[in-house]
Amino acid sequence: MTDFAASKALFHLPADVIYLDGNSLGPMPKAAIERARTTIADQWGEMLIRGWNDADWMSLPGRVGNRIARLIGASDGSVVMGDTLSIKVYQALASALALNPGRKVVLSDNGNFPTDLYMAQGLIDSLKQGHVLKTVNPEDVAGVLGDDIAVLMLTQVDYRTGRMHDMAAITKKAHALGIVVIWDLAHSAGAVPVDLTGCNAEFAVGCTYKYFNGGPGAPAFIYVRPDLVEKVRPALSGWLGHEAPFAFTRDYTPAPGIERMRVGTPPVIQLAILDAALDVWDDVTMADIRAKSIELCEQFIAGVERRCPMLDLVSPRNAELRGSQVSFRFDDGYAVMQALIARGVIGDFRAPDVIRFGFTPLYLDEGDVEAGINILADIMENRLWDAAEYKKRQAVT
Amino acid sequence: MTDFAASKALFHLPADVIYLDGNSLGPMPKAAIERARTTIADQWGEMLIRGWNDADWMSLPGRVGNRIARLIGASDGSVVMGDTLSIKVYQALASALALNPGRKVVLSDNGNFPTDLYMAQGLIDSLKQGHVLKTVNPEDVAGVLGDDIAVLMLTQVDYRTGRMHDMAAITKKAHALGIVVIWDLAHSAGAVPVDLTGCNAEFAVGCTYKYFNGGPGAPAFIYVRPDLVEKVRPALSGWLGHEAPFAFTRDYTPAPGIERMRVGTPPVIQLAILDAALDVWDDVTMADIRAKSIELCEQFIAGVERRCPMLDLVSPRNAELRGSQVSFRFDDGYAVMQALIARGVIGDFRAPDVIRFGFTPLYLDEGDVEAGINILADIMENRLWDAAEYKKRQAVT
Repeated sequence: MTDFAASKALFHLPADVIYLDGNSLGPMPKAAIERARTTIADQWGEMLIRGWNDADWMSLPGRVGNRIARLIGASDGSVVMGDTLSIKVYQALASALALNPGRKVVLSDNGNFPTDLYMAQGLIDSLKQGHVLKTVNPEDVAGVLGDDIAVLMLTQVDYRTGRMHDMAAITKKAHALGIVVIWDLAHSAGAVPVDLTGCNAEFAVGCTYKYFNGGPGAPAFIYVRPDLVEKVRPALSGWLGHEAPFAFTRDYTPAPGIERMRVGTPPVIQLAILDAALDVWDDVTMADIRAKSIELCEQFIAGVERRCPMLDLVSPRNAELRGSQVSFRFDDGYAVMQALIARGVIGDFRAPDVIRFGFTPLYLDEGDVEAGINILADIMENRLWDAAEYKKRQAVT
Repeated sequence: MTDFAASKALFHLPADVIYLDGNSLGPMPKAAIERARTTIADQWGEMLIRGWNDADWMSLPGRVGNRIARLIGASDGSVVMGDTLSIKVYQALASALALNPGRKVVLSDNGNFPTDLYMAQGLIDSLKQGHVLKTVNPEDVAGVLGDDIAVLMLTQVDYRTGRMHDMAAITKKAHALGIVVIWDLAHSAGAVPVDLTGCNAEFAVGCTYKYFNGGPGAPAFIYVRPDLVEKVRPALSGWLGHEAPFAFTRDYTPAPGIERMRVGTPPVIQLAILDAALDVWDDVTMADIRAKSIELCEQFIAGVERRCPMLDLVSPRNAELRGSQVSFRFDDGYAVMQALIARGVIGDFRAPDVIRFGFTPLYLDEGDVEAGINILADIMENRLWDAAEYKKRQAVT
């Protein structure tokens, strides 16, 4: 049984803060500071260029990728780190389209995170090969699958609602129709059990600054199904995806396996911090995380619905259909979230009217959730959000 | 007059090391450790998600971009940071091709860094629009320019030889023929004076872990000529290049200006470290850097040629045609470099037979250069490189 009191002790959480936004940016594992210091002072400072060999920076994207792989049901050597999630979406989609050249439709849902759709549109516009990006409501995806679709590209857990797709069932149906499948695990990885091998999808991508607590701007990951990877010729064919980067040959030859999905020089310092953050998972099981996450979400929903009837639950009520986050709708949701933050309860706001809370058992317990409910209830019951200072929007929330 | 003793004091250099590889990875500015610590502990740790506003992480790519802009002769608001140089090459080339749709030839030279050519090839292969990548010898570029060429994509300073293109003259000639020009400043930025505004090129890209000392995996930069940027629709159209990322609209609308070249979430910690590293430049002029760099290079060439006649100078003898690095050719160059490194003189090796030395006045002086010459001469005169231990190749050098 996972000892969540022990895992909580591995994080720094500011005094007087209840952090319900780890689904946007995970808090700082205490080990991050020292790992950054040693990477900078002992490795960069002392080894200089020799760090690529002596500290094995060069293999860091693959080594960290293997640690992520174990947490998303993927095999060793099937995941590599680098770049941002947007770039990894582009890589996956470009590769997926090339695997299904006779078809022209990219299907997604309108709950997908915008950057996935933006990157798809940018790729399609550049290719000028007649592709179209089609989006439907999340619940309609399975029903509209057809043999005209080249690629199905979905984010498993909807960033606004927390609604969760059934990866295995949708992938199976898509495959029966000859569709290549890409899963964005941004809100799944580290939040819910993911079984990439079992689901058999061709590609998956995700970020590491949410539930993996890698820090602001931590690098992304990409998974390619092992039986397929040798067929993939990366559109973003950078030198560190080359089979022999230091041969400096004129022509690109992809590296064997997942290493070909690397592009440029990896962000060594951020990767090292992420590597330290992943130590937290050594004594944690995803099944325990999921069970506890459901408990916390249920506690929050029940408490908020009882005490704040003016808030409408946006997330699925059925825990099986929900990720590790809970959202409510309220016209003045922006002001409510500002009032909450002013009181130390940090969630986030998603336009136009959604307030969103993430539940992360690694560092949140029932007492935190209860305290969060109490503050939210106080704000709603006493209309504390209805103050000008909370309605003035900042550029970023 | 720049006080180079003062700038040298801002860097940590290991005892008994003469570092002639800042052209590959700059050494650690002492301020990097503390800036990393405050970014991690005080910002990420205490502000959590609020750091995007409260520490203004969101504008960091533009703010640091402006600092780089001043060092490469570009105007405020014309440079933005992010991703890797490989990704920025792809962005620039995709945009450049779209500006010249009637032409199909991308011209580069065979001294360009391989990842530039690999990324170009990957883009061309994906587009399937009949583009071809053509390379010629560096000295032949000006002579083969013609009105069939869509984009001229060059690295100003050749990574192996240090040979330097005349940016202004080549750009002028290319423009007269209707060619869009991209300069890769990987080995120029921070090494030699660059006048992007004067040269009038459409695009420039570069990295920051070399002469800007941003640390391993520090982010890249991209420049787009200000009069042109509103016409550029990024192929890599990520959400942070959107005009309103937090509106979460379904369709991509590029941000005004250079911000549209942003893609995904920026690597905040590495950007902060780079920002600290750039403080070194506050009291430095590029003209002084260049003058001192030439002095150090001349000193090195003269000393090595006098004492190591078996080494053949690969770099241009004329300082005006050379960047801030010097290379020699030797059949057993790999072993020579290993022997040098074993003695604390760190340069690097570039296949098949080039040993390369970077000269960076910010932290190198005449005494360092003299000591480096003495050790190299000892190794060559006494055939110390001719030992099995130095010939066994490592994966990375």
